[in-house]
Amino acid sequence: MNRVQATYDIETPVGVSRAAAVLAGEQSTGTFVRLAAETDALRERSAARIENITITGTSSKPSLPSRKTGDNFERGTVTISWSLDNFGVSLPNLLSTLAGNLFELAELSAIRLVDIDLPADFAKAHPGPQFGADGTRKLMGGHKGPLIGTIIKPSVGLGPSETANLVQSLVDAGIDFIKDDELQANGPHCPFAERLEKVSHVLNRHADKTGKRVMYAFNITDEIEQMWRNLDLLEAHGGTCAMVCMASVGLPGLRAVRDRSKMVIHGHRAGWGLYSRSPDIGISFTAWQKLWRLAGADHLHVNGLANKFTESDAVVAQSAKSVQLPICGTDSDNLAPAHLAMPVFSSGQTVWQMDPARGLLGNDDFIFCAGGGIMSHPKGPGAGVIALQQAADAAKNGIAIETYAANAPELKMALETFKKPEITL
Amino acid sequence: MNRVQATYDIETPVGVSRAAAVLAGEQSTGTFVRLAAETDALRERSAARIENITITGTSSKPSLPSRKTGDNFERGTVTISWSLDNFGVSLPNLLSTLAGNLFELAELSAIRLVDIDLPADFAKAHPGPQFGADGTRKLMGGHKGPLIGTIIKPSVGLGPSETANLVQSLVDAGIDFIKDDELQANGPHCPFAERLEKVSHVLNRHADKTGKRVMYAFNITDEIEQMWRNLDLLEAHGGTCAMVCMASVGLPGLRAVRDRSKMVIHGHRAGWGLYSRSPDIGISFTAWQKLWRLAGADHLHVNGLANKFTESDAVVAQSAKSVQLPICGTDSDNLAPAHLAMPVFSSGQTVWQMDPARGLLGNDDFIFCAGGGIMSHPKGPGAGVIALQQAADAAKNGIAIETYAANAPELKMALETFKKPEITL
Repeated sequence: MNRVQATYDIETPVGVSRAAAVLAGEQSTGTFVRLAAETDALRERSAARIENITITGTSSKPSLPSRKTGDNFERGTVTISWSLDNFGVSLPNLLSTLAGNLFELAELSAIRLVDIDLPADFAKAHPGPQFGADGTRKLMGGHKGPLIGTIIKPSVGLGPSETANLVQSLVDAGIDFIKDDELQANGPHCPFAERLEKVSHVLNRHADKTGKRVMYAFNITDEIEQMWRNLDLLEAHGGTCAMVCMASVGLPGLRAVRDRSKMVIHGHRAGWGLYSRSPDIGISFTAWQKLWRLAGADHLHVNGLANKFTESDAVVAQSAKSVQLPICGTDSDNLAPAHLAMPVFSSGQTVWQMDPARGLLGNDDFIFCAGGGIMSHPKGPGAGVIALQQAADAAKNGIAIETYAANAPELKMALETFKKPEITL
Repeated sequence: MNRVQATYDIETPVGVSRAAAVLAGEQSTGTFVRLAAETDALRERSAARIENITITGTSSKPSLPSRKTGDNFERGTVTISWSLDNFGVSLPNLLSTLAGNLFELAELSAIRLVDIDLPADFAKAHPGPQFGADGTRKLMGGHKGPLIGTIIKPSVGLGPSETANLVQSLVDAGIDFIKDDELQANGPHCPFAERLEKVSHVLNRHADKTGKRVMYAFNITDEIEQMWRNLDLLEAHGGTCAMVCMASVGLPGLRAVRDRSKMVIHGHRAGWGLYSRSPDIGISFTAWQKLWRLAGADHLHVNGLANKFTESDAVVAQSAKSVQLPICGTDSDNLAPAHLAMPVFSSGQTVWQMDPARGLLGNDDFIFCAGGGIMSHPKGPGAGVIALQQAADAAKNGIAIETYAANAPELKMALETFKKPEITL
């Protein structure tokens, strides 16, 4: 297969079939006047092809405002394909095609990109995650089980020394993974270089003493050359992980980091609401994450079950699973690398979400970030981490968390402290 | 002023005042548990501040699905401010703050970033457009009036020689500006280097013969280092303009181009629908364009009046005007550069839209792109360009287009050929 396929959920006043043709036209040869140069051979070679159309419903009102109107608005799923000849394997140019002008077509009163299917050429041409789950474990000195992680809070306001002090208490508590907040990068009050120096000192001393290298995701998000300088600094300090806010730097930004990085890339999805919140415009995480894994993300945020944000548990489950599936399908001919990444759960997570999170993946290759879920344990953060480790062990061994808690006082206390959330899978 | 201000249109089941506090908290010190380290001094220094709240309405249903619900959903405008201490003048980190996790808050059933107000520090720290309108004119050999432009169509499918042949006929027709399509960058069928070489040959020969250097926006969109190589190639061929699909490369991507570019940067906004189509989630162009001008865009696409897409004429007018206003306000103390850019009108444009387009700006510092509006003139593209020049002259001199047409046969024929669109300003 040398074609890229994309599936859209659309709504239209002109009928789904007609709208699919407009969409395919706009995103390939399309112009509103047929020119002499546009020969049949050219169209055959370059035109986008409609692969499938399924009608799913009709409503009397448009979901999004548009110039074109009608008596009713048909909804459906359409699959379009493009030849690789049009754009090659360039990710930014693929993005311009998959999610470009078509989002503004007047013939559409809703359009979401729900899935993409990429030929093996993409997985072969792009580096993908350099470390993934196995590499992450190795960099930590052979960690087993899910990574129990947390986020430095307050998000902003702490200086470098205050941050390092907090990190000291977290590594003392037995944490596996710590990350900067997405709001904390290189502000005047907590400059990257100084924070890195002070925090690394704590991490390195802890590794020397215990043999355990806690992974800290330093937020390097910035202009391209500044990110490169940040990577050099990170390396000089024995850093193992660079965090990047993906939507803030763009696909070429992440790829530029990947090209110079000798450490894990932790992909933060700040701004994801823009893509995900409306049922009528946007991009599904299933589609979106493929691009970022190709560009090189090792870890990808997927929200958490029963999160404090807006995504349903079903979407979170699908997102988490998606990053552990091969990017370019499973043909027998397909010798392309799978480029698997680690899902990162976060947002309102406590011991209660551990078993369902592990259950949906069926493995331990994930990061489980909790803030209050660790810090607010009545016996302190140390007990908070132990409780999560106990929850992970219970999940791995298929023991009900309440049963396990009978012999695990930290877990028992956590179950009493944190409210059991409703999870709907 | 050393604070960044952002204004959001929000809808919430918890009341606009309460939601504003949640939003400000999430995007600064925010955590769901107050920690010991979070002292009052730290909050005073780092917390986002609510500057203004205006209630605008109430509805019984949420505009976007969310985990949190209620009996009614209050709508309003809130202005939040942050100290520069939190993130400095870094654009990607500013973006993480302005349009990050807050878009996913369960307390909000709608959120759009409608405006931002940046301190002069930003305009001083960032390079902004290198050329703007004056520089664009100079590179063209002193062009007067609006630039009459067109787009190479079919979007994809033409090879390098076919493209060059089309360019030959367009420069012969007297065009000022030509751009690659956003779908055409460096695909296997029309490689960038070969297209550049063949097209440049036509442009350079035309400049030698006529003294007029037609500006061609070559689509350099790609990975960072490939864009740099493209810039070098462009320079070697006497190129004057590089086109970049902004959303496909990210702010640091555009800035990386700006840092190495000796030519005009033409900012294409493919994918803009994602930000603009829903009234309930997104970013206004007024806010968005400030970031891209700071990063270095000289030209910015703003859609066209009576376009074939979805934006209303009022939004198009506001967008076009916004790129000609100083980025950082107009304090008397404010010695920051204004960083003005040229608006690019396109999409379904004909002679009919020239006067209203010029009218809303009050000047000629814009690019007016037409496809069918030039190619479908009954007397051919040459007459199509002349008709648009006549329309521009009529607009500049305040003469009604129909009156002017009495002595301008090309314009007269264009007015008869193209349907007069409805424009609602």
